[in-house]
Amino acid sequence: MASRMLARQSLLTISRHSQTPIPRRAMGAQASPSLHDQGLPEYEGPLMKTTIPGPKSQVLTKELGEIQNSVAVQFFCDYTASRGNYLVDVDGNRMLDLYMQISSLPLGYNHPALLRTLQDPANLATFANRPALGALPPHDLPQLLHKSLVSVAPTGLRQVQTMACGSCSNENAFKAIFIWYRNKQRGGAKPTTEELRTSMINQSPGCPELSILSFMGSFHGRTIGCLATTHSKAIHKLDIPSLDWPIAPFPRLQYPLEEHSRENASEEARCLAEVEDLIQKFARKGRPVAGVVVEPIQAEGGDNHASDDFFRKLRALTAKHGAAFLCDEVQTGAGTTGLFWAHEHWGLENPPDVVTFSKKMLTGGFYYKDELRTELPYRIYNTWMGEPSKTLMLAEVLKVVRAERLLDNVQHAGSVLLRGLTDLQNEFPNILSRARGRGTFCAIDIRDEDTRNKAVLLARNKGVVLGGCGDMSIRFRPSLIFTEIHANIFLNIFRDVVSTLK
Amino acid sequence: MASRMLARQSLLTISRHSQTPIPRRAMGAQASPSLHDQGLPEYEGPLMKTTIPGPKSQVLTKELGEIQNSVAVQFFCDYTASRGNYLVDVDGNRMLDLYMQISSLPLGYNHPALLRTLQDPANLATFANRPALGALPPHDLPQLLHKSLVSVAPTGLRQVQTMACGSCSNENAFKAIFIWYRNKQRGGAKPTTEELRTSMINQSPGCPELSILSFMGSFHGRTIGCLATTHSKAIHKLDIPSLDWPIAPFPRLQYPLEEHSRENASEEARCLAEVEDLIQKFARKGRPVAGVVVEPIQAEGGDNHASDDFFRKLRALTAKHGAAFLCDEVQTGAGTTGLFWAHEHWGLENPPDVVTFSKKMLTGGFYYKDELRTELPYRIYNTWMGEPSKTLMLAEVLKVVRAERLLDNVQHAGSVLLRGLTDLQNEFPNILSRARGRGTFCAIDIRDEDTRNKAVLLARNKGVVLGGCGDMSIRFRPSLIFTEIHANIFLNIFRDVVSTLK
Repeated sequence: MASRMLARQSLLTISRHSQTPIPRRAMGAQASPSLHDQGLPEYEGPLMKTTIPGPKSQVLTKELGEIQNSVAVQFFCDYTASRGNYLVDVDGNRMLDLYMQISSLPLGYNHPALLRTLQDPANLATFANRPALGALPPHDLPQLLHKSLVSVAPTGLRQVQTMACGSCSNENAFKAIFIWYRNKQRGGAKPTTEELRTSMINQSPGCPELSILSFMGSFHGRTIGCLATTHSKAIHKLDIPSLDWPIAPFPRLQYPLEEHSRENASEEARCLAEVEDLIQKFARKGRPVAGVVVEPIQAEGGDNHASDDFFRKLRALTAKHGAAFLCDEVQTGAGTTGLFWAHEHWGLENPPDVVTFSKKMLTGGFYYKDELRTELPYRIYNTWMGEPSKTLMLAEVLKVVRAERLLDNVQHAGSVLLRGLTDLQNEFPNILSRARGRGTFCAIDIRDEDTRNKAVLLARNKGVVLGGCGDMSIRFRPSLIFTEIHANIFLNIFRDVVSTLK
Repeated sequence: MASRMLARQSLLTISRHSQTPIPRRAMGAQASPSLHDQGLPEYEGPLMKTTIPGPKSQVLTKELGEIQNSVAVQFFCDYTASRGNYLVDVDGNRMLDLYMQISSLPLGYNHPALLRTLQDPANLATFANRPALGALPPHDLPQLLHKSLVSVAPTGLRQVQTMACGSCSNENAFKAIFIWYRNKQRGGAKPTTEELRTSMINQSPGCPELSILSFMGSFHGRTIGCLATTHSKAIHKLDIPSLDWPIAPFPRLQYPLEEHSRENASEEARCLAEVEDLIQKFARKGRPVAGVVVEPIQAEGGDNHASDDFFRKLRALTAKHGAAFLCDEVQTGAGTTGLFWAHEHWGLENPPDVVTFSKKMLTGGFYYKDELRTELPYRIYNTWMGEPSKTLMLAEVLKVVRAERLLDNVQHAGSVLLRGLTDLQNEFPNILSRARGRGTFCAIDIRDEDTRNKAVLLARNKGVVLGGCGDMSIRFRPSLIFTEIHANIFLNIFRDVVSTLK
């Protein structure tokens, strides 16, 4: 499908054991002009004026704290001054951003193509009149979907539904799976009066005892349905009622991968056996597994990878047991792993049944196979069902991705980033471990949680925005215009940070 | 609080028994210039060129149907040509819109104030860079919230959290209630290791057996948590696993209200007794009611009203039993009932604990009392947590609401609309019944479901967009710039429609 055409080369194989000494990295020329030829030039590097949060951020945090919990606020931003890979804060600090709003900006800050889209008078009505998309779509909706979502549809998934955010995407994907599963069970018959009656009072058979199998360490969102499949941190789940749905172990691979191939294969086999066991166990206890949801790389849970082989076998297992296979690509999608969809690395013969997306796609939503399509209206429905202005912006993003070969850029920048992380890990083996990644979707572990948190704050004060994940990992989530140059700027600063942790 | 200052007068008391004969309604002058003095003039009336859906809409529906279920699509719209109260479709038909995108446009189509906001270069960065609002807010967020949401906060609710949509607002409001309830139970102690451990595997006590009580006929959204409190139509709930939460009957009032005051009071007392009984029953079965969620007027379920007294007693009942009282104002909020929040009609001494909103507010979210505020970060959290560009647009909407006294307009236009509906009901007593409403949030029943559906289609072909609700009701949900003139245009057309149903 079209999404494959966005990549010119397969994922680079990165040596995790480079033994070369670590020179101060050359910055090289300025960032490739092809990435920034349409607007103001990008900044040349970080520029720090205060520690973070600076005085203005502190005042604003206190002010915001009067009307809502603002404990998670890092600092306040000047989004007008931010540009490309650089986030500028309200105190005038300019930081290289490898976190990009929790992995949600595809083209960095104020990309000229998006600014032009916003300023084009022809688009004004799209931004001014948010429609009830399921009832009264704009005249250009089919065309807009073809230019955007359909043009990057994963192989084999011809249907697409937009939604407002990642959680709504997963919630509605679960619903589509349950409806599909029950339609299979009914064998084409209409729902019975008893089903209709009991559905109104939350009881079986109308609201059946079905389940979605998820993995320990996963993150699929925070609404109550999603949260029943999220198992990354207790703070997300504590005190919220949930559903008795099966939870399988996710492989915990040992690094370096090359030295642990036998243990890792055995670990993956153990997890797959557990998946099958749970599917059978939940069938027996009258709560069949209608679908299995998995992130191609567990992100929030600690950037946990499994092999392509694991996912191929997981796909086969779900098919064997008649459960839908749902890939949650909310964080891995939109090119960040070097292919447009992370699951395309696996070489599946039988594609996932459903793929959810959000974040860098600007709109939430999900792709699905024809057989998961509901034929009745109002089964998958809400007032807004996404927003055409987001799909319009996505179409522009994809134009830039194609014109500037950004998937190639991700592969190259990612290889530089991962090789650099591996080099640092070799230099600081007591502090750093498990450098890993695909494309720029990279991560590294730091000794323990406190040291990790300290490293993130030190890096921030040196002008680099990073995000943590899991207990002791840093995850790198730059935008698609992050280049080798930015990787080297980061690696030099990060080496300084790690040096002080010794 | 400020929201009360938006209304100059209390709700008009509408006689439901006007016995005056029904002349052809005069159109009067053009729509008040104060409502449209800043841009192109509004259209003079409906103008139909084809039946609906027209040929272009039919082609587009088929095209869209190739990539998603498009069965609920009514027709395709030309949002550039639409203006004020008039929706123009892709075939050039111009319709007076009393449904306004399922009640979600506050100022109709292409309001000049919103077009100016979109075109102001100072706002460009707000639209181009959607932030992770909980971590990296824009420098003007506190100011923006004060100009928008805080300025219309319901009395007694000083905290506010934005969210992306109505479902996410209710999901997160439920979560805030559960967290508050458990914190009360713990009496300030930290969660135990056992709670943290079990929360990760969806088990009690970490994921406690708590519930939200809802009412039969209610609609609170379609994600899995919301759906457990939604009971309006089976098609929304069928096949989706749910939670064993209590469902109370909502009063079924008899009309005309003045003739059935004793029966209605008795019906409301019965429902309240059932609420208390369910609270006690679910406490005994180990699934305590942490909160009660209710719409001030059940919308999707059929525009079902209860008296102010009912809601005052319901509020008292929840307080008595230590459950939070959540008003879902997603549809009733933002001025459509003539006060900014529908629950302000009740004259509560003890305000609701939580009020959710979306639709006409342009952003989702919820207000809450100080005691429901979580003090830890990441309890109520997600990537986007709403969107500053929506809050910016809301601030503009509220400026217009104040400058043009639109709550007064809603009260006046609503009184004309409801009196007109009542007159028609008196003229066609075999077809129409139960004319009811507050502000322009009005409804009327039509003989049966088929006749209701037929009336909606006939009206559409005569240039009026309407929406149904419940089994046999039409709900009126015009925007806040719907005036007496538009009410009269509608009433004349509607009389023609009803005449043909005889």
